[in-house]
Amino acid sequence: MREFELLRHVYDANARLPGSVVIPPGDDMGAVRFGNNTLLVTVDQLVEGVHFAPDTPIEKIGRKVVTRNLSDVAAMAALPVAAVAAGCLPRSMAEATANQLFDSMRATSLAFGCPLIGGDVSMHDGPMVLSVALFAEPGGVTPILRSGAKAGDLVCVTGELGGAMEDLAGCVHHLDFEPRIDLARKLAKMETLHSLIDLSDGLGRDLGHIAEMSGLHAVIEASKLPISTAAKHAAARDGQAAWRHALADGEDYELCFTVPAGTLLPTGVEGVRITTIGVMQPGPPGVTVQLPNGQKIAATELGWEHHT
Amino acid sequence: MREFELLRHVYDANARLPGSVVIPPGDDMGAVRFGNNTLLVTVDQLVEGVHFAPDTPIEKIGRKVVTRNLSDVAAMAALPVAAVAAGCLPRSMAEATANQLFDSMRATSLAFGCPLIGGDVSMHDGPMVLSVALFAEPGGVTPILRSGAKAGDLVCVTGELGGAMEDLAGCVHHLDFEPRIDLARKLAKMETLHSLIDLSDGLGRDLGHIAEMSGLHAVIEASKLPISTAAKHAAARDGQAAWRHALADGEDYELCFTVPAGTLLPTGVEGVRITTIGVMQPGPPGVTVQLPNGQKIAATELGWEHHT
Repeated sequence: MREFELLRHVYDANARLPGSVVIPPGDDMGAVRFGNNTLLVTVDQLVEGVHFAPDTPIEKIGRKVVTRNLSDVAAMAALPVAAVAAGCLPRSMAEATANQLFDSMRATSLAFGCPLIGGDVSMHDGPMVLSVALFAEPGGVTPILRSGAKAGDLVCVTGELGGAMEDLAGCVHHLDFEPRIDLARKLAKMETLHSLIDLSDGLGRDLGHIAEMSGLHAVIEASKLPISTAAKHAAARDGQAAWRHALADGEDYELCFTVPAGTLLPTGVEGVRITTIGVMQPGPPGVTVQLPNGQKIAATELGWEHHT
Repeated sequence: MREFELLRHVYDANARLPGSVVIPPGDDMGAVRFGNNTLLVTVDQLVEGVHFAPDTPIEKIGRKVVTRNLSDVAAMAALPVAAVAAGCLPRSMAEATANQLFDSMRATSLAFGCPLIGGDVSMHDGPMVLSVALFAEPGGVTPILRSGAKAGDLVCVTGELGGAMEDLAGCVHHLDFEPRIDLARKLAKMETLHSLIDLSDGLGRDLGHIAEMSGLHAVIEASKLPISTAAKHAAARDGQAAWRHALADGEDYELCFTVPAGTLLPTGVEGVRITTIGVMQPGPPGVTVQLPNGQKIAATELGWEHHT
């Protein structure tokens, strides 16, 4: 069984959801009417041996299971409100380690204004499986969907991409990244964002979701990709082109968004680089990368897939 | 490491939660202010080999991971609004089985008015680990806490207790139970409920939570316990007293609540039996059972613990 097939089955059922559902499954968060407000929700898992190595420091695991969800909140330009956590822990885990795990989830949640208000703990003779569900509200910014891109839109990304698994002097981006919540809200208030997604599976695949759900084709230029130092390290080591790392490595947790043609974006917001990398065009859904030598390749084929 | 020790560590941190938290971790649901409303949240896991046997029909597993959470909603007399699900599935699971699992979760959620609006799927080489987070609103009924019992309160339960693991002509209560949401809300509108909990770990332990959090001692009479047919079957088989099964088996998913002394309760609501089984008294937190022969025993010692 592959994740993709199950998700297709899930999305096929969206048409039968009740009218209270504002955003059905398939975007970065789902949403439902709640009193006079809209409740946005996301859930994400971290599985030992799949999403992190068994020797990962426990505080980093606790942080990441929260920040991954916060990156989904950023991808809707929403405001986090609260979180709950479920942990299926190895029976052999020391009490002090379990306490550190919880303390890290709690501190990370609180730092982003979404206190942990509930949880569930189980123990078993298997790997650690953590899940966090996180709730958010629009807070004055209409949630920005993957499906809103228009033909002619500029395609933009925040920060620098690639090499998220590289260890740069103890800093490993996929564990240590900052979810772009403030940045997303600033951008959404400053400019007209037609579509928005966070980059977890690699720009190629994630921009592919915007293309697919907007019914458009994205064309981006390899030479314009903001390449991280970590991507250059990875490229120097494995001999692949650095732009390929930026496009396919995944776990950047930066934002990819589209804005109307002609929008004059700042080159940075709050010290984070903003780069225009391409354009949305009519055509069959997909992503094409133009290389400096003029060659064109299908970027969706390069995207990184979790080892699931 | 034991669940209990981690939970104590978690609850110790409650004092440092922000003012937006209406109900901190430690009750059946947590709650936070959300717009002009209160958002109640619960999360619960089902782990293969811990909460269900590997040969359990997949539809029953999908149903139970939702109904367990719905029972927590009943325990606050709240109204379910929406849910999200996370599944860490064995890589070997057939696509059709994964689809059936999702369909069962979706149908169960919808039947109780809380559409599934999001999820996360992972695959690994280990046991199935499911978690569902469920959101609710008070809907005109102030949430009823475990901590509200008063000295002199009558202790009452809904339905019949014990033997939830027994297979009675294909019906196994721990898989097939009906969460008591409507019943809880009817009771809460009809009577003054001082405290309320759902029975998942066994009456002895769960009433122990009310006693602990209310700073009182519960005294119940074994002869008054509403004993299920399944509990009688179990008792006939293993030679234990049937009241012991009713008190300790767990997974009844009935409600236990306390009402002011002198309250005249109906003997049933909507075909579900309501039974007064004891009284809350001043004294050290705990639960005492009086046997027909006059003997008194500490019921908290009998409570059922998940195999975690």
